[in-house]
Amino acid sequence: MSRPGDIAVALVHHPVLNRLGESSTTAITSMDVHDFARTCAFYDVTPVYLVHPAEGMHAMVHDICDYWLNGAGAKRNPGRREVLSRIRVLHKLEEAQDDAPYKLWYTSAAPPQNGLQDIETLHAEPGSHLIVFGTGSGLDASKLPPANGWLRPIKGIGKVRHLSVRAALAIYLDRCRRSDR
Amino acid sequence: MSRPGDIAVALVHHPVLNRLGESSTTAITSMDVHDFARTCAFYDVTPVYLVHPAEGMHAMVHDICDYWLNGAGAKRNPGRREVLSRIRVLHKLEEAQDDAPYKLWYTSAAPPQNGLQDIETLHAEPGSHLIVFGTGSGLDASKLPPANGWLRPIKGIGKVRHLSVRAALAIYLDRCRRSDR
Repeated sequence: MSRPGDIAVALVHHPVLNRLGESSTTAITSMDVHDFARTCAFYDVTPVYLVHPAEGMHAMVHDICDYWLNGAGAKRNPGRREVLSRIRVLHKLEEAQDDAPYKLWYTSAAPPQNGLQDIETLHAEPGSHLIVFGTGSGLDASKLPPANGWLRPIKGIGKVRHLSVRAALAIYLDRCRRSDR
Repeated sequence: MSRPGDIAVALVHHPVLNRLGESSTTAITSMDVHDFARTCAFYDVTPVYLVHPAEGMHAMVHDICDYWLNGAGAKRNPGRREVLSRIRVLHKLEEAQDDAPYKLWYTSAAPPQNGLQDIETLHAEPGSHLIVFGTGSGLDASKLPPANGWLRPIKGIGKVRHLSVRAALAIYLDRCRRSDR
């Protein structure tokens, strides 16, 4: 039985790898803000940390959230207030530790080590868990704090080996938080 | 054991309901083109039908796909060719029957009838199956051909009862096509 509140999510935009394997930075997209917040709200996961070093990106997220939390959007679609209230922006992933002593679980389509953690049994591990997703071509683990472990990747059956980060989030949360089976 | 090729997906932009419950039309977004194609490629599901009555929307999808199938994008990122090769545009959902005698399985967060179909057992049903998603506030079933049935909705555990259509697709395909369990 999963306990609400024991799992949080982070989406990292720096440090991530680009297509050439170089350390890089991506832009926060409004689609990811909404999709990450909505999927996490659906499965009662909070908070959703968006990690980006640039103040301008933080300002964009604040503007989006302010519209739906306090502005005209809050009247037009009150449901989004519940959804977007879980968004937090951080300059560095390490700052999440100010909220809780999170165990960090990194995700990758090609994780670098054995001993992978199954998402289905994560809630049996004591403590607070932060599932960390990378944009671009994935997390640059060499520039991130040491992980508690890596989640077992989602395995496809087609020729295409990578899901969008939005799809990966939805599948992981369904696997660990599904309530009707 | 699921058989590749037995399941296809459609994303309907008309006829769908708007927030007021009126019959309506939404725009195709480039994000949905990419996310639907990528999730379906990952789970070896094809084709992906995008349903819209307007020629301009068809032209937009053709431009996006042509860039990645034949244009500069095909050289820059050949993987997207495999992904986007499964996209088809239709004016009406009924036209999908020209490709195969599909059984139609409609999706909704609040389906209108009992006798719901579990996605996990869909592949045990004989024939070709088309899983149909609605944009906006969901399919306007009164203006669509009769469904073979409705899929059991994905059940959340939070206060928020609706997933994005991108997240719903990812979760349904993982539940019916997952290969590692």
